[in-house]
Amino acid sequence: MLDLDIQIPAVPQRSYRVRIGSGLLGSLLDAVGADLPKRAQFVVTDGNVADAGLLDSLLAGRDVPTFVIDPPGEQSKHIQTVVAIIEAMEKAFLGRDTVVLALGGGTVGDIAAFAASIFKRGVPVVQIPTTTLAQADSAIGGKTGVDSSVSKNAFGTFWHPAAVYVDVDTLETLDEREFRSGLVESVKHAVIADKGYVEFLEGQLDAILARDPAVLQTVAEKNCRIKGRVVAIDPDEKNMRRMLNYGHTIGHAVESASDYQLLHGEAVGIGMVGAGLIEIEMGLGRPERLERIRALFERLGVPTRIPPSIRAEQVARLLGHDKKAIDKWPKFVLTNGFGQVYRQEGQWAVDVGRDIVEKVLGQMY
Amino acid sequence: MLDLDIQIPAVPQRSYRVRIGSGLLGSLLDAVGADLPKRAQFVVTDGNVADAGLLDSLLAGRDVPTFVIDPPGEQSKHIQTVVAIIEAMEKAFLGRDTVVLALGGGTVGDIAAFAASIFKRGVPVVQIPTTTLAQADSAIGGKTGVDSSVSKNAFGTFWHPAAVYVDVDTLETLDEREFRSGLVESVKHAVIADKGYVEFLEGQLDAILARDPAVLQTVAEKNCRIKGRVVAIDPDEKNMRRMLNYGHTIGHAVESASDYQLLHGEAVGIGMVGAGLIEIEMGLGRPERLERIRALFERLGVPTRIPPSIRAEQVARLLGHDKKAIDKWPKFVLTNGFGQVYRQEGQWAVDVGRDIVEKVLGQMY
Repeated sequence: MLDLDIQIPAVPQRSYRVRIGSGLLGSLLDAVGADLPKRAQFVVTDGNVADAGLLDSLLAGRDVPTFVIDPPGEQSKHIQTVVAIIEAMEKAFLGRDTVVLALGGGTVGDIAAFAASIFKRGVPVVQIPTTTLAQADSAIGGKTGVDSSVSKNAFGTFWHPAAVYVDVDTLETLDEREFRSGLVESVKHAVIADKGYVEFLEGQLDAILARDPAVLQTVAEKNCRIKGRVVAIDPDEKNMRRMLNYGHTIGHAVESASDYQLLHGEAVGIGMVGAGLIEIEMGLGRPERLERIRALFERLGVPTRIPPSIRAEQVARLLGHDKKAIDKWPKFVLTNGFGQVYRQEGQWAVDVGRDIVEKVLGQMY
Repeated sequence: MLDLDIQIPAVPQRSYRVRIGSGLLGSLLDAVGADLPKRAQFVVTDGNVADAGLLDSLLAGRDVPTFVIDPPGEQSKHIQTVVAIIEAMEKAFLGRDTVVLALGGGTVGDIAAFAASIFKRGVPVVQIPTTTLAQADSAIGGKTGVDSSVSKNAFGTFWHPAAVYVDVDTLETLDEREFRSGLVESVKHAVIADKGYVEFLEGQLDAILARDPAVLQTVAEKNCRIKGRVVAIDPDEKNMRRMLNYGHTIGHAVESASDYQLLHGEAVGIGMVGAGLIEIEMGLGRPERLERIRALFERLGVPTRIPPSIRAEQVARLLGHDKKAIDKWPKFVLTNGFGQVYRQEGQWAVDVGRDIVEKVLGQMY
């Protein structure tokens, strides 16, 4: 018997740049070419983004091989779409010297980055998020994935982007419901990380809803700073990164129970109200703080209650299937003040008794 | 316009253990359980390995969820097998707290490790190689992948194993052709890295072919030390790791031209002879060194010439498609002495003119 230890050295210090602005799209291929020279470019987008004219703005008349995900949305978020993307890349004679550009919302970003991460053992991906949700959240952080026939994100990798370009002009064409629901993740960032950001949102929400480019850039900046800081400390979600799941535990269960009729941001908003009620129940939060969050959601026009078609028992049952559940009952991310995540023994997700959750679910109608 | 830099810290120093011995299989589930406690185990193997009794030896009567790749071999090395594995894991209610055990040859290892690398953003894999090829080469180094309808290893990741268990007893049931051809990678390691190992192989080849367990353990140790050292320095094949592709440039082309009727090791042996002829042509090697390599291959009973059914023009054309080809003509790994890889300007794979390669191909019949 003999034992050998093989050292895998730490990967070199990696970082990536998030560029935020307006009017970036038209010169973006050049910028990517400058950052990642000698790499063939390949664009992944979907029909909605193309119909909104954003693909044309990006290509600006150039002939770059492109894959348009069809149909757009969650229903294409499965492994066969990834297989089709990779075979399209091969048919375009692309190799390891390729960079994938993901132009679109969270679904496009998840699918395209996953494809990039497994194409010939991994090629870089550049995220170009075009929704409030993706600009606030999914474009940063390196989580990729697609669904199996059994569960969401059954297939996936951690694959950090080589760069992120946030062009707030791309939000102009977004429909109102998607625009507003995506802002819930901004409220989430404010609540978990930055009291001043809560106050900024309270003061600037009308300008945000009017899609003022300067204010939208500030929102993007605040989101990227907050998420970037957390992801840099805990890229693979061993612990601290879990704070970003605030509102997502009940949120995911409600989203699933609605059969994805609720948008992700809408479900997270409901979940944040649930987390706030748990905090009150556990003596961590005061009702006035929850009221300020609820007021923001009401101005956003997103739901703050579980839709009556969804039964509390159903939500409780789905919570037991949460992917972060240990022993089939999940831990919860909670706050005990704006910008203060509550920790127990160094853990960013903590135990909450089933009785408390069930009581709170009853209050959410 | 605003630029933010997000730091992705280096992953913590990682290492993994290669355990080499005989009679390891029966207690291996316990050993993995001790090394990776609180992880549910999932075994991936194939019909050949199961028929040889190795799956029963591993399980030793325990009820561990298992996926048997069917049919065994290269024809199952595609993405749909990976989809089937992952859906089987989900149906067995496995989550992120799983460890995948890959019991088999290189194909099983490649498929199982790829599945592990993309299951819920990655779970550990333990490699249990059961062929001379996998024990010498593929089980160590973290390359995973499956083929698309267009090319080999179109899908893949770098995913280093959590541990490798080399039980030389598993080689007892291997058929003679597979046993012998897999030893070509051992000759390759000796040629590129260790003159003493060349002499060891020359002296011990009869004992190796008689499958003497003690000598096979020494062979495994030498292979793992050589490959482990290279992989530790260059895990993602940026440069130095390319030396492991010695003989593989012409080898892959010949393997492909044979429509995979040649085994991988057989094709690499032919490719090593080609590399040796190029070295002579370029004044890097003497004919006596190549003769020693050829003599080892003849004792192994593997081919040293391109089969007459494959035309030299076909091999030259396929070389232009090599995945490591820049501008459609590959670079070659060459040696200028036993244990000495020839480098040009710090590069481990160097330019060789098309005329030289075509001349050499003409000498290989």
